[in-house]
Amino acid sequence: MSVCSLYPALRVTMPWSCSESHLGSCRKQLMFCVSRTTARRRASTGVSCSADTRTVVIGLAADSGCGKSTFMRRLTSALGGVAEPPRGCGAYSNTLVGDATTVICLDDYHALDREGRKEKGVTALDPKANNFDLMYEQVRALKSGVAVEKPVYNHVTGRLDPPELIRPPNILFIEGLHPLFDPRIRSLLDLSIYLDISNEVKFAWKIQRDMAERGESLESIKASIKARKSDFDMYIDPQKQYADVIIEVLPTRLIPDKSATEVLRVRLVMREGVKHFTPVYLFDEGSTISWTPCGGKLSCSYPGIRFFYGPDTYFSDEASVLEMDGRFDRLDELIYVESHLSNLSTKYYGEVTQQMLKHADFPGSNDGTGLFQTIVGLKVRQLYEQIIAGDGSHGLKREQLRRCLRLSPV
Amino acid sequence: MSVCSLYPALRVTMPWSCSESHLGSCRKQLMFCVSRTTARRRASTGVSCSADTRTVVIGLAADSGCGKSTFMRRLTSALGGVAEPPRGCGAYSNTLVGDATTVICLDDYHALDREGRKEKGVTALDPKANNFDLMYEQVRALKSGVAVEKPVYNHVTGRLDPPELIRPPNILFIEGLHPLFDPRIRSLLDLSIYLDISNEVKFAWKIQRDMAERGESLESIKASIKARKSDFDMYIDPQKQYADVIIEVLPTRLIPDKSATEVLRVRLVMREGVKHFTPVYLFDEGSTISWTPCGGKLSCSYPGIRFFYGPDTYFSDEASVLEMDGRFDRLDELIYVESHLSNLSTKYYGEVTQQMLKHADFPGSNDGTGLFQTIVGLKVRQLYEQIIAGDGSHGLKREQLRRCLRLSPV
Repeated sequence: MSVCSLYPALRVTMPWSCSESHLGSCRKQLMFCVSRTTARRRASTGVSCSADTRTVVIGLAADSGCGKSTFMRRLTSALGGVAEPPRGCGAYSNTLVGDATTVICLDDYHALDREGRKEKGVTALDPKANNFDLMYEQVRALKSGVAVEKPVYNHVTGRLDPPELIRPPNILFIEGLHPLFDPRIRSLLDLSIYLDISNEVKFAWKIQRDMAERGESLESIKASIKARKSDFDMYIDPQKQYADVIIEVLPTRLIPDKSATEVLRVRLVMREGVKHFTPVYLFDEGSTISWTPCGGKLSCSYPGIRFFYGPDTYFSDEASVLEMDGRFDRLDELIYVESHLSNLSTKYYGEVTQQMLKHADFPGSNDGTGLFQTIVGLKVRQLYEQIIAGDGSHGLKREQLRRCLRLSPV
Repeated sequence: MSVCSLYPALRVTMPWSCSESHLGSCRKQLMFCVSRTTARRRASTGVSCSADTRTVVIGLAADSGCGKSTFMRRLTSALGGVAEPPRGCGAYSNTLVGDATTVICLDDYHALDREGRKEKGVTALDPKANNFDLMYEQVRALKSGVAVEKPVYNHVTGRLDPPELIRPPNILFIEGLHPLFDPRIRSLLDLSIYLDISNEVKFAWKIQRDMAERGESLESIKASIKARKSDFDMYIDPQKQYADVIIEVLPTRLIPDKSATEVLRVRLVMREGVKHFTPVYLFDEGSTISWTPCGGKLSCSYPGIRFFYGPDTYFSDEASVLEMDGRFDRLDELIYVESHLSNLSTKYYGEVTQQMLKHADFPGSNDGTGLFQTIVGLKVRQLYEQIIAGDGSHGLKREQLRRCLRLSPV
């Protein structure tokens, strides 16, 4: 007997019928209905339930081209298994589904497709181009164990494809431009993460990707950055004030040339008092430490490595900051750094190093981006386990689950 | 039966008979002779011996007015017991004798008294004003377990007083202007320490002592510093190149005003490879760390406290440096700092803190001077114990001692 098929589903009514027109013109058509089968089952049990006690929801906000997908691969790996596009879905999906995790991309909630945005003169960063009502309803549904049929935005065509069924996973990541924008959606998040890439680094990354790989001209890249800047500053960047965890990626300070972006200084800002998230610390909790680990125990070529840890404030809130400037020469020596970090939420000694070695080919594996993404992955796993182990403050309690399973055999 | 009375004595021949003339004119009269009793005993045993296997000799070099006496009180306290002027000696002595330690002041080896120096136009810092032959002979005698009758320089009269008997202790400190000047004497030292007070701090301390306490004018203090500067730079300062351990006392860097000397930045420089002396480290041996311990676990009023630890070079040799900038608000909280320092050579957890609290009234108890002096005291104790426990590379071996005691019952 599997109770996993017990998903009541919220369905988006025919958004794909609008695929030939602008989404904007059919916004009003977007509505929900509980499928008849599901409604019958709910009526028969009297309680909505899924195979798991609850879905933990994590928001990851960042601008495009900021390495969200690598971050997501590290996160899902830390949580066990590989996340892949959902089986049986159409040719195009932005979603990744793993054993315990599902990552949905909030671009799927674009209310205006590419043409519509062009017509109205708004960018995808503008809240007006996104359907927050639907985003909220569907995240809320998933969080309470209800499957949804989520729209799919096709980044190739710039239009909506047929929706895909998203089942409530153990951990749901919502990643994109606006996961922390709408206060209703923020209230659903168990943890919120903001990936904050400094302008210098973002520019360098964009150059690398769009010029080297896509053959775009420097002028067109600069123009596209400029065109997005105002909306980014107005709608995306301010979300970081709501984040529990912020990963800041900045140019190194180890090289006198301030515009050097080949070497990165990465800061993991962890707000204090976040439930189920204890900040990582270096050597001594609560004090301020700068650490150059290079020497007999760690190989460092120029410009070396410097760690920093200390208390700070972030938007007037108390926070702990762990910073790594520089690059590892040998990833296997990371164990030495790991041994001096505490509150890593690892299950065994060396797990961070093992995770890093496992994905040594991922971008950022030799610097703080990879290290801190990996650490955040392990912290998310612990957060999930602590929530499930149960303070009962969110979602279904164990007793409720037991009752649910007793009442609704399938 | 006590074997402690078995000291053969080296006697200075009548230096006190010169007390009315300049020492310079009777330098030739300074010679040694083995007392008849001792010579007989040595003949009967065939080996020179004392109650202890050997005397460990530590040199402490520093300019006058640099806190050597406080340092000595901390050192002798760490080694057990209180050091006091020798019993039965005359009204004046520069020596301190404790249970296990004796501190002799090398001013006692002035070859020219105050008037003689004035006449010849030399300062006490000039090697010409000091008798290094006698210094060497007597330190060598004490090191090999032979008591000496050491001259006594009277700082009040500026002349020599009658000599005093110095028995070979477990640990002999020779402190003064020139303990590391003469290569023969350096070769006798088991550990050499240099107390390096920066000019700014030295000036501030001198002002405080000579102006506030002795009523001297600022001009006369400046003139006296100027008069000594050239000899200090030529004869005293270069000795630090030979030191195993250097305590540098500098103005703080925590206050923007660079001339601020009320708060001190103190550096403990420990050369690598010194036998029986393992450098202290903070958190992680061999890497470079800056630590601001202030926060929930340590009260810090302005300007706070900053520690630094890392590898360095000192006169082209490898060294470890531990630095403390700032002042403790509450000495009992030092345990928190102590818990993060390693290789302290303590016998139990918290011994450094206990030693500091015991002498909370000593100058420098709330900053790095007191802390590092205390630590050096514990390191000296361990060095002594390791030498005695015996690698047999110096002094009498245990087997020799046993033979000595068997052969020479008293």
